Amino acid sequence: MIIDIDVLQRNIATMSRIHPGAQLRPHMKATKCTSLAKMQVEAGHLSFTCATPREMIGMANAGLGSDLLLANESLDAVRLSAMAKLQDSSMITVAIDSDATLDAAVKAGIRNVLVDVNVGLPRCGVLPNLAGALADAARKRGLNVRGVMGYEGHLMMVSDKKDRQAKVAESMALLLQASADVGGEIISAGGTGTYDLHEHTGVTEIQAGSYSLMDTQYAQLNMPFGQAMWVVGTVISSSSSWSVADVGLKSLGMDHGNPSIDTQSVWFCSDEHITFATTSGDAPKVGSRIRVTPAHIDPTLAMHDVAWIVRGDQVIDRWSIDLRGW
Amino acid sequence: MIIDIDVLQRNIATMSRIHPGAQLRPHMKATKCTSLAKMQVEAGHLSFTCATPREMIGMANAGLGSDLLLANESLDAVRLSAMAKLQDSSMITVAIDSDATLDAAVKAGIRNVLVDVNVGLPRCGVLPNLAGALADAARKRGLNVRGVMGYEGHLMMVSDKKDRQAKVAESMALLLQASADVGGEIISAGGTGTYDLHEHTGVTEIQAGSYSLMDTQYAQLNMPFGQAMWVVGTVISSSSSWSVADVGLKSLGMDHGNPSIDTQSVWFCSDEHITFATTSGDAPKVGSRIRVTPAHIDPTLAMHDVAWIVRGDQVIDRWSIDLRGW
Repeated sequence: MIIDIDVLQRNIATMSRIHPGAQLRPHMKATKCTSLAKMQVEAGHLSFTCATPREMIGMANAGLGSDLLLANESLDAVRLSAMAKLQDSSMITVAIDSDATLDAAVKAGIRNVLVDVNVGLPRCGVLPNLAGALADAARKRGLNVRGVMGYEGHLMMVSDKKDRQAKVAESMALLLQASADVGGEIISAGGTGTYDLHEHTGVTEIQAGSYSLMDTQYAQLNMPFGQAMWVVGTVISSSSSWSVADVGLKSLGMDHGNPSIDTQSVWFCSDEHITFATTSGDAPKVGSRIRVTPAHIDPTLAMHDVAWIVRGDQVIDRWSIDLRGW
Repeated sequence: MIIDIDVLQRNIATMSRIHPGAQLRPHMKATKCTSLAKMQVEAGHLSFTCATPREMIGMANAGLGSDLLLANESLDAVRLSAMAKLQDSSMITVAIDSDATLDAAVKAGIRNVLVDVNVGLPRCGVLPNLAGALADAARKRGLNVRGVMGYEGHLMMVSDKKDRQAKVAESMALLLQASADVGGEIISAGGTGTYDLHEHTGVTEIQAGSYSLMDTQYAQLNMPFGQAMWVVGTVISSSSSWSVADVGLKSLGMDHGNPSIDTQSVWFCSDEHITFATTSGDAPKVGSRIRVTPAHIDPTLAMHDVAWIVRGDQVIDRWSIDLRGW
């Protein structure tokens, strides 16, 4: 797996111009790499979104703990306690959406929470009209309630931008209603697919992650971010009609379908292979290298221990994808 | 990720009764775990199929190198040389399907090859009528040609068994034709989906791997192998209509679609979540544990560092998935 440092740098700079500083809370689930997060810190973002306790703890241990949000529910007493222990040196905030998750946070000694509000995606989050009561219960138990979050993940790929914008506005109206009941200064939402649709929603910070490396699915939305990550393979076999490279299901997240190869037509992936046909020009020779562009960056990155950092075709560094796993 | 040792043991024993000893060459791509391979050795199988050099080298280093086949093409001089260095203590055989892969094997000092024959799956393998010439070229350059292999992967999921059997017979006729031209004693083919369809095909050994742990896709074929592996999650959120557990795209191979949960209806997976509805009875409580059954075992297993070995609900051991990666 390779990352083009110049494209990555441009993507980070582009997003920082649109959402400077605390207006962006970069999501670590897409990248899981403290070396990459350090570039986001250098661009002025000190607050981060995490999906797992491992990401929270890893960011704090890397000295990137200014303001870490676990934008996910946890009932794991061991991991919540491990996060609580970091609170003297790091700002740790945990999402809650039920009495059970509130109780787990209190018992572990977590001090700061956000109320996670369901804004239409059938996943986590309390119903908007119940958010205030959960916030009251949290304050009664001594927690600091910093505000609300809600993820409009069901709207990321609405293809028409005007339609997407209208639906995001409706969804965020639910979050603002909850925010009025909950209080606190934070209204956190959004993702790479809706990063530019929150100007009038009242949202105070955007949780985007994929923008830094990108994938073929998000590329369909015509955003000002370039593809910065590929899985590199070698062509190991070829016939008169197709070629085969050694990049397969074990190095590519497949939930968004097949990956792409420039100037080639991908037929299918197997465990350790990708079969593709050449649509114009000569087929690549056996032994030649190809770049495979993933359809979904988040699970793809999570399959790799290491990113080779390139400038053009030159390898200049090696980053550990150090926040993988659980 | 957990593996039920009793179900695993039964699956291995069942397959060993049908294909004892060298009639089965268990495929390591499905399991990538030397601890599991040792159970297959204890059941009498001393020859193994590998998809990657890492699997070959790891098996040899674990003392499981009686007869290792890289059933895949490689042009990687470094890794081929690493395999060649193991040849004094291990039996190493590498598949070739072109002059380029033959050349790479010779240059690395590999002594034994199989000719990989295309039997209908658009992937690797030389055309059947060109197999003999490739074998002659290999012998001319001093290699020992042990025979042929061909993978009828396109036929694994033909749902009607009689239809599957007829198509496997046609496909294997191509392999036998190539075998007649190539010579050597090995005719290697098959997988879990066709393990019982080779009685009259002339094939000397079956390359099956998934049978030991199974998945929901192969379960559709009504085979005598039970589900032995699950990803365990915790229910972290629930609403009146759905529940959410913390098992997602980063712990499940998704190329065969959604995983399953007993007595639940799976709606979709996100990076770190699975959303599901309860079809009968009470929904699981927040905090309760569930077992998620993968749709495709091979890429699922490859995402996990560790398997927790259970007997019933008791954890009795911890295995490293030590042959992951490349």
